[in-house]
Amino acid sequence: MQQISKSIKEGALAFLNAEYRLLLVFVLIASIALFFVSQAVETTSWFIIPAFIVGAFFSGLAGNIGMRVATDANARTAEAAKTSLPQALKVSFSGGTVMGLGVAGLAVLGLSLIFLFLMGQFLVEGSGKFYEEMTIVLEALAGFSLGAESIALFARVGGGIYTKAADVGADLVGKVEAGIPEDDPRNPATIADNVGDNVGDVAGMGADLFGSYVATVLAAMVLGNYVIRDMSTLTQFTDNFNNMGPILLPLVIAGVGVLASIIGTFFVRIGSNEAKEATVQRALDIANWSSIILTGIVTWFLIQWMLPNTINMDFFGEGLKEVPSRHVFYACLIGLAVGALISMVTAYYTSLGKKPVLDIVKNSSTGAATNIIAGLAVGMKSTFWSVLLFAAAIYGSYALAGFYGVALAASAMMATTAMQLAIDAFGPIADNAGGVAEMSELDEKVRERTDILDSVGNTTAAVGKGFAIASAALTALALFAAYVTFTGIEGINIYKADVLAMLFVGGMIPVVFSALAMKSVGKAAMEMVKEVRRQFKEIPGIMEGTGTPEYAKCVDISTKAALREMILPGLITIVTPILVGWIFGAEPLGGYMAGVCVSGVMWAIFQNNAGGAWDNAKKSFEAGVEIDGKMQYKGSEAHKAAVTGDTVGDPFKDTSGPSMNILIKLTCLVGLVIAPVLGHQDDKGTSDNDFNEKNQIEVTIDESNHRAALQDVN
Amino acid sequence: MQQISKSIKEGALAFLNAEYRLLLVFVLIASIALFFVSQAVETTSWFIIPAFIVGAFFSGLAGNIGMRVATDANARTAEAAKTSLPQALKVSFSGGTVMGLGVAGLAVLGLSLIFLFLMGQFLVEGSGKFYEEMTIVLEALAGFSLGAESIALFARVGGGIYTKAADVGADLVGKVEAGIPEDDPRNPATIADNVGDNVGDVAGMGADLFGSYVATVLAAMVLGNYVIRDMSTLTQFTDNFNNMGPILLPLVIAGVGVLASIIGTFFVRIGSNEAKEATVQRALDIANWSSIILTGIVTWFLIQWMLPNTINMDFFGEGLKEVPSRHVFYACLIGLAVGALISMVTAYYTSLGKKPVLDIVKNSSTGAATNIIAGLAVGMKSTFWSVLLFAAAIYGSYALAGFYGVALAASAMMATTAMQLAIDAFGPIADNAGGVAEMSELDEKVRERTDILDSVGNTTAAVGKGFAIASAALTALALFAAYVTFTGIEGINIYKADVLAMLFVGGMIPVVFSALAMKSVGKAAMEMVKEVRRQFKEIPGIMEGTGTPEYAKCVDISTKAALREMILPGLITIVTPILVGWIFGAEPLGGYMAGVCVSGVMWAIFQNNAGGAWDNAKKSFEAGVEIDGKMQYKGSEAHKAAVTGDTVGDPFKDTSGPSMNILIKLTCLVGLVIAPVLGHQDDKGTSDNDFNEKNQIEVTIDESNHRAALQDVN
Repeated sequence: MQQISKSIKEGALAFLNAEYRLLLVFVLIASIALFFVSQAVETTSWFIIPAFIVGAFFSGLAGNIGMRVATDANARTAEAAKTSLPQALKVSFSGGTVMGLGVAGLAVLGLSLIFLFLMGQFLVEGSGKFYEEMTIVLEALAGFSLGAESIALFARVGGGIYTKAADVGADLVGKVEAGIPEDDPRNPATIADNVGDNVGDVAGMGADLFGSYVATVLAAMVLGNYVIRDMSTLTQFTDNFNNMGPILLPLVIAGVGVLASIIGTFFVRIGSNEAKEATVQRALDIANWSSIILTGIVTWFLIQWMLPNTINMDFFGEGLKEVPSRHVFYACLIGLAVGALISMVTAYYTSLGKKPVLDIVKNSSTGAATNIIAGLAVGMKSTFWSVLLFAAAIYGSYALAGFYGVALAASAMMATTAMQLAIDAFGPIADNAGGVAEMSELDEKVRERTDILDSVGNTTAAVGKGFAIASAALTALALFAAYVTFTGIEGINIYKADVLAMLFVGGMIPVVFSALAMKSVGKAAMEMVKEVRRQFKEIPGIMEGTGTPEYAKCVDISTKAALREMILPGLITIVTPILVGWIFGAEPLGGYMAGVCVSGVMWAIFQNNAGGAWDNAKKSFEAGVEIDGKMQYKGSEAHKAAVTGDTVGDPFKDTSGPSMNILIKLTCLVGLVIAPVLGHQDDKGTSDNDFNEKNQIEVTIDESNHRAALQDVN
Repeated sequence: MQQISKSIKEGALAFLNAEYRLLLVFVLIASIALFFVSQAVETTSWFIIPAFIVGAFFSGLAGNIGMRVATDANARTAEAAKTSLPQALKVSFSGGTVMGLGVAGLAVLGLSLIFLFLMGQFLVEGSGKFYEEMTIVLEALAGFSLGAESIALFARVGGGIYTKAADVGADLVGKVEAGIPEDDPRNPATIADNVGDNVGDVAGMGADLFGSYVATVLAAMVLGNYVIRDMSTLTQFTDNFNNMGPILLPLVIAGVGVLASIIGTFFVRIGSNEAKEATVQRALDIANWSSIILTGIVTWFLIQWMLPNTINMDFFGEGLKEVPSRHVFYACLIGLAVGALISMVTAYYTSLGKKPVLDIVKNSSTGAATNIIAGLAVGMKSTFWSVLLFAAAIYGSYALAGFYGVALAASAMMATTAMQLAIDAFGPIADNAGGVAEMSELDEKVRERTDILDSVGNTTAAVGKGFAIASAALTALALFAAYVTFTGIEGINIYKADVLAMLFVGGMIPVVFSALAMKSVGKAAMEMVKEVRRQFKEIPGIMEGTGTPEYAKCVDISTKAALREMILPGLITIVTPILVGWIFGAEPLGGYMAGVCVSGVMWAIFQNNAGGAWDNAKKSFEAGVEIDGKMQYKGSEAHKAAVTGDTVGDPFKDTSGPSMNILIKLTCLVGLVIAPVLGHQDDKGTSDNDFNEKNQIEVTIDESNHRAALQDVN
C-alpha cells in the first residue's frame, strides 16, 4: 500500500517538476515582456516583475503543498477506512482542508505582503496624489495576480490534458481490450491515471481558485481606489483606515473567509459507521453553509467599521450617487447567494436521480447517438438558470454599489474558497484511497467505505466546478471593470465597428480553445494506448502478475504530452489580447474581453455540465436503473451507450470545460496589465485626429460637469 | 413513379397547409401587437400591419411555389435520368432555378411595391422633413421584413424538426430494426422522409434566404436614409435620384442580382453523359462565379450613377468624413468576397477527402466516442476562419463607408440569392429523384445518375449553409446598426451593468434554443418510431409488399410534432427581446441583440459544420476509406461508429444549426420594430433623472459641434 501511494506521489511530483521547468522558461519570457511594459509607461513600475515571479512562486507552492498532502492522505484514508467510515471521512477531509487552507492562506499572505511592501515604496504621505500613487501600487500588484493565473493555466490546462490522457489510455487498453478491472495493478497506466486525479482535480482546481481569489481581491482594490478618488474630492470622507477603507476591505474579507472556513471544518463529522452518502453529504453541507453564513455576518461588521456611512460613487453615465455603506454589504450577500445558487443549479443538472441525468439514462436505451444528443441538450439547457443568476448578480450588485459592488460580490463569493477547496479536494483523495485499496487488495469493507466517500465526492466535484465557473466569471467581470478604469476610456461602445468585430473574435476564442484542448487529449491518449499495448506484449508475465509494469514510462508520456499540448492554447490565451490591444487599441480590446467572457461562460457551463451529467448517467447503471419499466444494469446495451457518452464527456468536464475559467480570467488580466500602455497609445492616437478640437471641448465640459455634480452632492 | 411523386407533393403541401393555419393565428396575434406599437409612437404608422401580412404572404407564396416546383421536378428528373445525365442535371437545376427566382423575384417585387406605396402615402414634396417622413416609411416597411422572417421561423425550425423526425424515425425502425434499405416503399415513414427533404432543405432554406434578403435591403435603406439626413445639411448634395440614391441603391442592387443570376444559370450545362461529380460541380461553380462577377461589375456602374461622387458620412465618435463613392463599391466587393470565402471555408471543413473529415474517419476506428469527439472538435475549430473573415468584413466595410457600408456589403452578398438557392435546391431534388427511382424500381443506370447529382448536392448543401450563416450574421449586424439609429441612442456601452448583464442573457439564448430544438427532434422521432413499429405489426403483408403502408399517418405525425414543438422556441425568440426592451430599455436591448448574434454565430457554425463533417465521414465508408493502412468499408465497426456520429450530427446540421440564422435575424428585427417605442420610453425615463440637466447640456453641445463639423467639411 505504501509502495503504491509512494508511486502516485512520485508521479505527481515528477509532473510538477517538469511543469516548473517549463514554467521557468515562461516566467523568463513574461518577465522580459513585463520589463518592456514597465519601460513604456510611467504608471507601471518595474516592481511588477518581482510581483509576477512571487505570484507564480506562491501559486506553485500552494499546488505543491496541496499535492503532497493529498497524495499522502490517500494511503492514510485507506488505512483509516480499515477502522471506520467516520475515521476515513475525517482523514480524507483533513487532507482537503490542508489543501484549501494552504491555497487561501498563501493567497492572502502573498497579496498582503506585496501590497504592504509596495505601499511603503510608492505612497508619499501628504503628497496629495494618493490616487495616482495607489494606481502604481495596484498596477504592480497586478503582476502578482498575473503570475498566479499563469500557473493556473499550466495546472488547469496541462493537468486536464494529463488526467484524461492517462484515464482514457488506461481504460481503452486495460478495461476494454485486456478486460482487467479499473485500478488493476497489472495495468501500466494505473499509476498515471491516479496521478492524473491529483494533478487535474486537486492541483488544477487549487491553482484555478488561487488565481480567482487573488484576481478578485485585486480587481476590488482597483475599483476601491477609484471610489476613493471620487470621494476624496469631497470634504466629509472619513473612515477608520486613513481613508483607505474601500481598498483594504476586500483583502480583509478574504482573511475573514479563511477563518470562517477553518471554523466550518469543525462541523464535518458523522457519528455512525453505518452512515450513507446522504449523511456524509449533509455534514459537508452544514460545514459549507456555516462558513458562508459566518462570513456574511462578519462582513456586515467589517463594512460598518471600514467604510464611511455613505459613499459617493460614480455610476457610469449617471454621475455620482450617494450610496449607504449597507448597500455594499447587500452586494456581498448577492455574491454569497449567487455562488451557492449556481452551485445548486450545477448539482441539479449533474446529480444522480434528478430529471436531467434520468433523461440521458432513458435515451441510452436507443443507443449511443441518442444518449449523446440528450447529454449535449442537458449541457446546453443548464446554461439557462446559471446565466440568468449570473446576469442578476451583475445587475443587482451594480445597482447597489456600482462596479465596486460587483467586485465585492465576487470577493465575498470567493471568501470561503478554503472551504470550497477542502470539500472539493476530499473527493479525489477518497477516489485515490479506493484505488490504493484495490491495488493493495485490502478488505472489501475498505473499498465499500471509500466508495461512499467517492460517490459524495463526485457530487461535490460537480458543485465545485459550478462554483469555479461562477467565481471565474465574476472575477473576469471585476477585472473587466478594473481594466476600463485603468485605461481611462469612457466605456466600451459596441456600436463602433472595430469593437464589434473584436467582440466576435473574442467570442470565437473559447470555441477554438476547447477544440484544441479536446484534440490534445485525443493525441495524448493515443500515445498512452500504444505504450500500454507495447508493455502488455513485451513484458513477460505482466498479465499473470509476475512481471512488473513500467509505471514510470506511462507517467512520463502523460507528463510530456500534457506540457507539449498546452503550449498552443496557452499562447493563444496570452498573445491574442496583446495583439488586439496593440493593433486596435483599448476599446476594441475591451470588446474582445467581453466576447471571450460571454462565449467562455456559455462553453464552460455547457461542457462541464454535459460531462458531469454523462458521468452520472453511466454511474446510474451500476446500481441498476429502470427504463420503460425494465431494470437495466451494468453490461446492458444501454449501459454501453452510456459509457460512450461518458467517454465523450470526459474531456468536456475535465479538460476543455474547466480550462474556460482560466481563459476568461487570464484574458482580462493580460488586458489589465497592458491597460496603461493602451491608455497611453490612445492619447497619441487622438492627437492626429481631425476632430481633436471637438473632443477636447467635450472632455473639458465633461470635467466641469463632473465637478458641478460633485458640488451638487455636497 | 407518378404516384410516389404525388404522395410526396401532397405530404409537403399538407405540411404547408397545416403550417399556414398555425401561421394565421400567429399573424393575428402579431398584428394586434403591432397595432399597439403603432398607437404608442407617432413614427410608426398602422401601415406596418398590412406590410407585415403581405410580407408573411409573399414569403409563404415563395415557399409554396418552390415546393410545388421542387416536388414536381423530382419525378421529371428521374424520368430525364432515363435518357442521360446532362438531361437530368438540366431538369433538376431548372427546378432549383425556378425556386430561386421565385424567392428572389417575390422579395424584390414585394419590397418595391410596398415601398412605392408607402412613399406615396407619407412623402410630402418640399415639406423639408424628408428624413422624418422616410423614417415612417421605412418603419412600416420593417413590417414586411418581420412578416417574411416570421414565416422563415416556421419554415426553418418547424421544417427542421419535421425532416429529422421523419428521417430518424424511418431509419431507426426501417434500416436498423427491420433491415430494409433506405427509401424502401415498404417503410411507412418513407414518404414523410422525402417530404421532409423538401420541407426542411427546400422550403426552409428558401424562407431563410427570403428573410435575409428582405431584411438586408431594409437595413441598408434605413442606414441610407441616415446618410441622406447627414448629407442634406450640406448644399452640394445632388444625385440622379432626387436625392434618394443611397436609399434606392440596395433595392436596385437586389434587382440586378436577380438578372445576373438568370444569366448565370445559362452556364449550368455539361456535355458528356459520362461526366463525374467534378464536372457537374465545375458547371455549378462557373454559373455561381459568373453571376457574382456580373453583379460586381454592374454594381460599379450603379454606384457611379446613383450616388454623388463624395458622400459625407457620420462615423460614430469621429464625426463626419468625406467618403468617395467608390468606397461604397469596395464595401460591396468585401461582401461578395466574404460570402464566397466563408462558403469555401465551410466546404473545406465538411467535404469528402479533406483533412477535417478524414480526421473524423480516422477516429472512427477506435469507436463512436472518439468519432464524436473528433466531430465536435472539427465543428469548433471551423469557427476560426469563418469568424475572422466575418470580423474582417465588419471592420473593412465600416472603415470604407460606415455602417451603410456594412449593410451594403450584406446586400451585395445577398444579391445573388437566386443563384445560391438554385444551386442549393437542386440537391434535394436530385436526392428525391433518386428516392423516386428506388421506390419505382427503375433501371440501375437512373439511380447511378441521380446519385452523381445527389453527391454534388451534398457539397452544395454544406456550402449553402455557410452562405446562409454568413448572410444571416451580416444581415443581423445591419439590422443592429439600423436599430441604434432608430432608437436614437448614442451607442451601446457594455461598461453599463444592465447592458453587460443583457449581453450575457443574449449569449445564453442560442444555446438554450439549440437544446430545445434538439430535444424536439428526439421527441418527434420517438412518436414516429412507435407509429412505424405499429404499422409493421398490424398491417398484414406489409413486409411482403402486398399490404400498403399508411404513409399519410406518418406524414401527419411529423407535421403535428413539428408545429407543436416549434412554439416554445418561437415564443422565446420573439418575446424575449420585447421583455428585455420593455423592462430595461433600448441600450440593454442592444446588448441583448449583440449577445444573441455573437453566441448565435458561433453555435450556428459549430453545429452546421460538425453535422456536415460527420455526414461525410460516414459517406466516406461507402466508397471505402483507408485507416492506418487498412481499407474499411460499409458494415465495418468503424463505419458503425461513423453512423452514430452522423445520427448525432443530423439535428445539428438540419435543425438547431440552421435555426440559429432565424434566431439572430428575428431578434434584431423585433428590436428594430419596437425601437421607436423604446426611444420614446427613454425620453420619459431621463426626464426624472437627477442629472438631466447635465445631459441636456451635453446634447446641445454635441449638436453645435456637429454643425461646426459640418461647416468644417464645407
